[in-house]
Amino acid sequence: MIEIDPNLVEEYLRELARHGAYGETGVWRPVYTPAWSAAQDLVTAWFEDAELEVRRDAVGNVWGRLAGSEAGPAVASGSHVDSQTPGGRYDGAFGIVAALVAVKALRERFGRPRRTLEVVSLCEEEASRFHAANFWGSRAIIGAIKQDELDRILDAEGVSIAEAMRSVDLDPDRVADAARGDLDTWIEVHIEQGPVLEAADVPLGVVDAITGIRHYVVHLAGRSDHAGARPMIGRRDPMAGFAEIVTAVLGVALELGPPAVTTVGRVQAEPNLAAAVPDSVTFTVDSRHPDPGLLETQHELQEELMREIAARRGLSLSWTTPLDLPPCPCDPSVVAVLERASAAQDVPFVRMSSGAGHDTQNLARVAKVAMVFARSKDGRSHTPEEFTSSSDAAAATGALAAALHELAY
Amino acid sequence: MIEIDPNLVEEYLRELARHGAYGETGVWRPVYTPAWSAAQDLVTAWFEDAELEVRRDAVGNVWGRLAGSEAGPAVASGSHVDSQTPGGRYDGAFGIVAALVAVKALRERFGRPRRTLEVVSLCEEEASRFHAANFWGSRAIIGAIKQDELDRILDAEGVSIAEAMRSVDLDPDRVADAARGDLDTWIEVHIEQGPVLEAADVPLGVVDAITGIRHYVVHLAGRSDHAGARPMIGRRDPMAGFAEIVTAVLGVALELGPPAVTTVGRVQAEPNLAAAVPDSVTFTVDSRHPDPGLLETQHELQEELMREIAARRGLSLSWTTPLDLPPCPCDPSVVAVLERASAAQDVPFVRMSSGAGHDTQNLARVAKVAMVFARSKDGRSHTPEEFTSSSDAAAATGALAAALHELAY
Repeated sequence: MIEIDPNLVEEYLRELARHGAYGETGVWRPVYTPAWSAAQDLVTAWFEDAELEVRRDAVGNVWGRLAGSEAGPAVASGSHVDSQTPGGRYDGAFGIVAALVAVKALRERFGRPRRTLEVVSLCEEEASRFHAANFWGSRAIIGAIKQDELDRILDAEGVSIAEAMRSVDLDPDRVADAARGDLDTWIEVHIEQGPVLEAADVPLGVVDAITGIRHYVVHLAGRSDHAGARPMIGRRDPMAGFAEIVTAVLGVALELGPPAVTTVGRVQAEPNLAAAVPDSVTFTVDSRHPDPGLLETQHELQEELMREIAARRGLSLSWTTPLDLPPCPCDPSVVAVLERASAAQDVPFVRMSSGAGHDTQNLARVAKVAMVFARSKDGRSHTPEEFTSSSDAAAATGALAAALHELAY
Repeated sequence: MIEIDPNLVEEYLRELARHGAYGETGVWRPVYTPAWSAAQDLVTAWFEDAELEVRRDAVGNVWGRLAGSEAGPAVASGSHVDSQTPGGRYDGAFGIVAALVAVKALRERFGRPRRTLEVVSLCEEEASRFHAANFWGSRAIIGAIKQDELDRILDAEGVSIAEAMRSVDLDPDRVADAARGDLDTWIEVHIEQGPVLEAADVPLGVVDAITGIRHYVVHLAGRSDHAGARPMIGRRDPMAGFAEIVTAVLGVALELGPPAVTTVGRVQAEPNLAAAVPDSVTFTVDSRHPDPGLLETQHELQEELMREIAARRGLSLSWTTPLDLPPCPCDPSVVAVLERASAAQDVPFVRMSSGAGHDTQNLARVAKVAMVFARSKDGRSHTPEEFTSSSDAAAATGALAAALHELAY
């Protein structure tokens, strides 16, 4: 059993939340802003205090290293320091604090590890400032940033991400230097962004997969008609077809059962007039499942229903899939380590998948990965109201510490 | 049998369509514009040629009068001269031409009527320039224009309807003078704006009622959630509720059967993002039936379903009804005259209701009314492509002439 002081975790979180503070409990800390720089400076100071070798990489990820007695690739943990605008004090930040507190605790109790341990504060995950820069920090680590993105990706004020990097003394020409080929294992601790743990009444989730996500943008076209003079029979009404499709595609996710989810979040009718049958309805379908085979089944069933409904109603149907991320299974051996660690720490847990995307799905390309979720109040995130109790936060930190102990000592 | 020359009807229509011509077959003739003035001048000249007493009333309706040998209220017919932007050459215009050609034919063959006959070119029905000035001409005739509307109603350029009237030498202070208390019967000939006559393969519809229309603007609020992290069960998804409501309210109209119609034409989701369950969905329900009792039943069933669906899904529901027009039944005696007249003219017809609004529903407040519909190609109107054959137009004109003969001679 590795003891973790809930107050220490709480204190670090509170201190980090001062940089970019938004209201009582919120944070507004987009990448490469003064609040972000101040937060990374604080993290740097913490890492130095913990006697880790600190370096800032080419995109601004801050790494703290505790060298192992043996050579070989490192075991790393951390999360992202940027926030939604506004976001809360846990999303991202908690994974940095958990990694730091865990490695500090291990070092204090067990001294130098056999394998090198690293903690990292990733520069950018939320894309809250640069909407096209999603997962910037982890993409740099896996060497997936393309040179042309640097000048092409702009914030709302038209500032390129290259300019923004220069403003915090980073050299955009050196982005490739951030790539790491020497990571063995990656574990990310994060607050759950849904209500699963709260409903199950356990503090911890061991994440065995990150969901696959496809976004359909569907265009359903019929014939606009006078709302009074055209009888019901004979209409080619895309709104009626849209309604049937919404019920059908949500129904597929309901029938497949958890963790299948499907959401229709965006809709636009043309001409969008009260007294006219619309000419067309354009809408999104966000369809997710963490199991590759079931995700394919889910998409096939949904596409078949959309085609059947459109054909029966004489509507023309077309779609694009601007987002199509495959599921990311976690490494079974790392999942097993986390389960043993949680049990050893006496922390009740469930295995679960992540319905949201995380840096971990990128780092899976260069390391064995898994994640730990800590219970969120009301399943909320991306809001100043997000909350995880200090005892739940300490439990997740303890499970991480025990896992790092098994992996590195 | 009263002979009507299809070529004469066709020629009048073609000549009138020159004023505000839009492309090959279209018309762009909003009220109080130069094209509108030229059209009313042409109508004035036609009425004078037909030896009618002509006068332009206080809002610009042009009246032609054939005085009867007996005193007493008049029998009148006509329609509106303004068009959609763009519209076609039949909507409105045809009702003016039909009335003129019918009265000319009666005068030429039967001379002076017993009762006074009037034909009228109404100034404004479509509200295509002044969106709040719907039925301006007929509302003036029934004395329903409020003084404050004159300066309050503006076109897209900010010109008030009072200014626009002055620009064509009308005095807005005299609007009340347009009111008529001396009309006995009103018959309006109009193209059908739907496909009913074409489907029934008859040229003529005798309209026994104009539909009642209610517009609901419905607000359905739930709880926005992450599209991945929130499982399907436990969502309060207003898009799912909206979809179920669309299917349900359209289903009510389908089950009640023709002429019940219901349309959901407008929808807006908030925040309208692909990866978030919406917070709310706002939409319109346009619900119409010409029978007062059935309209009430239809509305009650639809409201009950909306309430049931919202309650079951934990959604909050509210609505306003910014438009709520009761059905306008036509006068049974005038309907019977039109049926006898159509039969006498050997014109096949069906009785039907109008699913669209017409000036006639206002004139019902001061006269016995009915309408005649002429078959439209593909049921189209409010477009340059609207088309009614010259033989169908002549058939409708002949039925009108025979009806006016029965009423006035």
